[in-house]
Amino acid sequence: MKGTMKAVRKIRSEPGFDLVEVGIPQIRPDETLVKVMSTAICGSDIHFYNWDEYAQKRIKPPLTLGHEFSGEIVEVGAEVREFKVGDYVTADSHIVCGVCEVCKMGLQHICQNLKIFGNDADGSFAQYVVVPETSLWPLSRSVHPDIGGIMEPLGGAVQATLIEPVTAKYVVIYGDGPMALLAAGVARASGARKVSLIGMVPSRLEVAKRMGADAVYNIQDSVDYVQAIKDETRGVGADVVIEMAGAPASVKNAFDSVRKGGRVTLFGITPKPVELDINFAIILRQVTVRGVAGRHMWDTWRLVDGLLASGQLDPSPVITHRLPLDRFDEGFKLLTTGSREGIKIMLHPNGTP
Amino acid sequence: MKGTMKAVRKIRSEPGFDLVEVGIPQIRPDETLVKVMSTAICGSDIHFYNWDEYAQKRIKPPLTLGHEFSGEIVEVGAEVREFKVGDYVTADSHIVCGVCEVCKMGLQHICQNLKIFGNDADGSFAQYVVVPETSLWPLSRSVHPDIGGIMEPLGGAVQATLIEPVTAKYVVIYGDGPMALLAAGVARASGARKVSLIGMVPSRLEVAKRMGADAVYNIQDSVDYVQAIKDETRGVGADVVIEMAGAPASVKNAFDSVRKGGRVTLFGITPKPVELDINFAIILRQVTVRGVAGRHMWDTWRLVDGLLASGQLDPSPVITHRLPLDRFDEGFKLLTTGSREGIKIMLHPNGTP
Amino acid sequence: MKGTMKAVRKIRSEPGFDLVEVGIPQIRPDETLVKVMSTAICGSDIHFYNWDEYAQKRIKPPLTLGHEFSGEIVEVGAEVREFKVGDYVTADSHIVCGVCEVCKMGLQHICQNLKIFGNDADGSFAQYVVVPETSLWPLSRSVHPDIGGIMEPLGGAVQATLIEPVTAKYVVIYGDGPMALLAAGVARASGARKVSLIGMVPSRLEVAKRMGADAVYNIQDSVDYVQAIKDETRGVGADVVIEMAGAPASVKNAFDSVRKGGRVTLFGITPKPVELDINFAIILRQVTVRGVAGRHMWDTWRLVDGLLASGQLDPSPVITHRLPLDRFDEGFKLLTTGSREGIKIMLHPNGTP
Amino acid sequence: MKGTMKAVRKIRSEPGFDLVEVGIPQIRPDETLVKVMSTAICGSDIHFYNWDEYAQKRIKPPLTLGHEFSGEIVEVGAEVREFKVGDYVTADSHIVCGVCEVCKMGLQHICQNLKIFGNDADGSFAQYVVVPETSLWPLSRSVHPDIGGIMEPLGGAVQATLIEPVTAKYVVIYGDGPMALLAAGVARASGARKVSLIGMVPSRLEVAKRMGADAVYNIQDSVDYVQAIKDETRGVGADVVIEMAGAPASVKNAFDSVRKGGRVTLFGITPKPVELDINFAIILRQVTVRGVAGRHMWDTWRLVDGLLASGQLDPSPVITHRLPLDRFDEGFKLLTTGSREGIKIMLHPNGTP
Repeated sequence: MKGTMKAVRKIRSEPGFDLVEVGIPQIRPDETLVKVMSTAICGSDIHFYNWDEYAQKRIKPPLTLGHEFSGEIVEVGAEVREFKVGDYVTADSHIVCGVCEVCKMGLQHICQNLKIFGNDADGSFAQYVVVPETSLWPLSRSVHPDIGGIMEPLGGAVQATLIEPVTAKYVVIYGDGPMALLAAGVARASGARKVSLIGMVPSRLEVAKRMGADAVYNIQDSVDYVQAIKDETRGVGADVVIEMAGAPASVKNAFDSVRKGGRVTLFGITPKPVELDINFAIILRQVTVRGVAGRHMWDTWRLVDGLLASGQLDPSPVITHRLPLDRFDEGFKLLTTGSREGIKIMLHPNGTP
Repeated sequence: MKGTMKAVRKIRSEPGFDLVEVGIPQIRPDETLVKVMSTAICGSDIHFYNWDEYAQKRIKPPLTLGHEFSGEIVEVGAEVREFKVGDYVTADSHIVCGVCEVCKMGLQHICQNLKIFGNDADGSFAQYVVVPETSLWPLSRSVHPDIGGIMEPLGGAVQATLIEPVTAKYVVIYGDGPMALLAAGVARASGARKVSLIGMVPSRLEVAKRMGADAVYNIQDSVDYVQAIKDETRGVGADVVIEMAGAPASVKNAFDSVRKGGRVTLFGITPKPVELDINFAIILRQVTVRGVAGRHMWDTWRLVDGLLASGQLDPSPVITHRLPLDRFDEGFKLLTTGSREGIKIMLHPNGTP
Repeated sequence: MKGTMKAVRKIRSEPGFDLVEVGIPQIRPDETLVKVMSTAICGSDIHFYNWDEYAQKRIKPPLTLGHEFSGEIVEVGAEVREFKVGDYVTADSHIVCGVCEVCKMGLQHICQNLKIFGNDADGSFAQYVVVPETSLWPLSRSVHPDIGGIMEPLGGAVQATLIEPVTAKYVVIYGDGPMALLAAGVARASGARKVSLIGMVPSRLEVAKRMGADAVYNIQDSVDYVQAIKDETRGVGADVVIEMAGAPASVKNAFDSVRKGGRVTLFGITPKPVELDINFAIILRQVTVRGVAGRHMWDTWRLVDGLLASGQLDPSPVITHRLPLDRFDEGFKLLTTGSREGIKIMLHPNGTP
Repeated sequence: MKGTMKAVRKIRSEPGFDLVEVGIPQIRPDETLVKVMSTAICGSDIHFYNWDEYAQKRIKPPLTLGHEFSGEIVEVGAEVREFKVGDYVTADSHIVCGVCEVCKMGLQHICQNLKIFGNDADGSFAQYVVVPETSLWPLSRSVHPDIGGIMEPLGGAVQATLIEPVTAKYVVIYGDGPMALLAAGVARASGARKVSLIGMVPSRLEVAKRMGADAVYNIQDSVDYVQAIKDETRGVGADVVIEMAGAPASVKNAFDSVRKGGRVTLFGITPKPVELDINFAIILRQVTVRGVAGRHMWDTWRLVDGLLASGQLDPSPVITHRLPLDRFDEGFKLLTTGSREGIKIMLHPNGTP
């Protein structure tokens, strides 16, 4: 497609991004061009915005940011076979090789040759984005573009929660970031016996309730939430604990909250190593620990799709703000200032969808 | 406990039961005496009522019938350790040996030395019933006695449905008996993508909707429901099909409805062998078939408990009638006459709970 | 690569193949050229040789046959990333799209857009074959080229046998074709409690023993092998039964041989529908049935690789003949004449490896 | 049974045991009397022998020690149903309640009301031991009494190893105690791709090889065994790592040895908490951790039985000494002196079996 488009790009080696006019990118035979309807700011984008040490190592400007999005296909390459112009889609931001040993283990999402939109290739903070057919996921028109735009983080929450079944089980979630709030919704939609969430930002705990958490605890209150979980379970503990806070104290509490024979998902990245009494935490009580690093291609996506279609999962409470693309600076400020008012913020590059 | 009680018993070798006054039964050291609050008529009880060939082989009068019930413990033996007088309970009707090879495989519910309340020992169509501690399941007071009284058939529906996860999956159920209607509720509560049920009694299809089925089809209408399932799944078929109708045609349709790599649960007993093209039905499309014969002790019960506690499963629409114990004849007539108006019918031996 | 090569091709619409001299095929950027060291005759090739109804529908001459092979890469396209000239390889004969809904379910081997070497594209009965990188599997030099050439059927046997664990379990195999004999070896190598195989060709039953079967039964003898299995298991039956004979009577016997709670793998394609008492066969005894249609890409291959590396699986007894490519007619005769002397027959297009 | 017998008992509150003559114990209706053929010294018995702090808290003298044994039933109670006089048996040392919530989760081996032979009830360091029917496991006469006497620790090794399948997988074991050596044999018998064991006692590493380990590493040598494991796996790491050394450094090495998506079993009790970089160890590489505290009743026993029957597992190399019961002091010295010459030591209370 000819012409130019607006894009939010990292151009200078310093904090901040620039809104610039660039040429609409050209596709190869196995790629598609997607007109972006909605794109979300991810936690990783904040690193790139702030231009911290991690960011300086990870990306090479100039680069268009953004990797969580929904849109409509406006052009397809000659070798594209299952998608056509007009299709409503989202994508996994992971561009995988498919031929390395890790991909052949079925772990494409941690492929040894992994590339990511908005990290290693131009991303979705733009009016158009190039997507290889192998990364596309078809969306139903019954899914709003803003929800389509957060299918990927929702996939992470689904993978962390449903890596083993939660139906009829007591689920405890540590954390109140977007992934934790989405996980609460996933557990609730999947028929969990009870969902309790432990966090620290009052407005987010309110969102947790709207997502379906039955009980929320604020760690800054004086309540002993580990004891509360035990009290509710005749002293036995929770069937499933999902650790998404990424704090060493939270990891310890997670193990203290789980029952004999239960499951702990570790998802939150901790800033330093964790000291753990593995005898009690894992061995003697025969606990299973599942490390989760992201969604699977494509079984997790199929689950996300099914949960949205079930009518039992509505992730919209986590979307706190919707902005035109050119007000991107506002979005980043909402996510980084002290009040932590923003949770998921959607940018609209082509008007309100 | 001393005294007498009312009991519905098979005394004569002919159709029908008798309401009689008998002594309250005495317990052994490892047993409890339960005052029955609510007890349900099971399909198997109809055989005993009608005194058909199966019934004549299976039970030896005199016998108190009934095996689905809830109640309160009024007496405990000296060796009982986890339960006490006043506890609100239900029970698995299976009295298992725990030491045969099948029990040691974890398949207690198909124990080689199996005995069943109301079949091999006096049952719950009475004011009091003797229950060994090993058969008891504790109930929460938040569960109504009528719901507590159908925990066992609910367990069968849970086992058939959740033997593999259904969250986010398209579930199709063949049949409109009580088990099928309960299965629809279980699938819906567990976050199924969609639940479709195929039956033939209009009033039951209405109950299916109240249980949470998204779509119902009447096989007596002219609609091609197998095609409808394909149309809704882009021609792929359902992820999970649960066969509970027990008709050879229904078994065939079940396999025609499932997708490549999907799961079929076979639960409904068929009156004769089924002719099956196993190449297409099972092999070439890599289908998994799970035979289910009842609930597991006790993991299925834990799931039933959790689903009821979740607030997402309300089985009450399947309970169509509630009667005092002495009007038991009325209950059996409702279940056996042409209109099939009754689904689950509860008898109350000690007043309305 | 320039030059010509020998190839066994279907040219005429009649029985038989022709050995012809053709140009060495050219590769595209994502493909490799493999110099074939050893290639096996598969049962499906016999249909093409005989030019039966199935064959006439399935393939369009002219076509080079063959899809089970090992070899060395002699040329790689510009976009090939994990393989290089000199690599010793085999391949899955399935060329999959990777983007259809079935592929995205992780069932690439039954892809909706499936193509197969030697069926839809020129195959390995030639000195060189073109293989896309996405179909290649790396071989260790410790694996003989003749074994490398049967990795694919071995994969089918592994998938059928190990779809659920067999370690410490009593495994019964129905059939004495190459897949059944390989399955016996796989079960033995995996630590099965006991492996019994039921067949009808004495020479193949001898091979079954060499593959590790502990007991073999010939259905043409008067022994009641279903009873023998029960006798050996205290009346309980086998933990796992793998049906590879594809005869309706064998399917029935398979279910009669399995224990309560056991697993039956259905693999053998039956010539007509099967009449089955599903009540006893599947439901009341809570049996699991797994349809298996082939190996998975790539988890099954990884298992095949590991079993060969373990030193506990030696599939060589199933290889009964090794011939130069130009004596292919001899190979087909060995497989189709009455004595059924041949099991797997390897053709060597570039000299004895 | 009337009469007296020899028993090794803790009588005095100080180190050591006494060999005394006591009355043959009497059985209750649900119990059996077993004439002990062979009984093994367990690591836990050493605590009781040494009378350390743990021992003083755990047991109350007077008590007959011992819980790993084989023998023959010489008397059965009136309610015993599946076993009879003359049966050759072993037992799980766990006496479980069967009715607590943990038992009802299927985790009988960590029952909330757990009692253990030789800890809470008189044990098997005697000519006769009382065993409730619910604890018995039938032995085949093809299993030697000394092997029957170590079925229980073998069960721990089986549970740790086979909690997820190891067939065709690269298995690494940390530790060279009896459990680790048995685990090496279990992995080898189950068709592991390769079994590597890391220990520190040269004579035990020799036993590891005899049990089937393909490679052994001594941590006191200068070899970098973590690197060696990576080198053998193209840098990917092992599929399965079983930590049985119980040292914090070993736990860290275990995680460094496992591949992306692999499994670590934690089994060895560590003397203090472990500091772990869970980001790398578990989360980012999507590792599964399985805590194992013992064998399951009874599925693990079934596996042990099947592995012994397979002929592929011979645990006899771990049995280093066989002594008459009255030379028990010698046995304890062999296990506690510096040379660590003894591994499993069998005591024979009724002559050499």
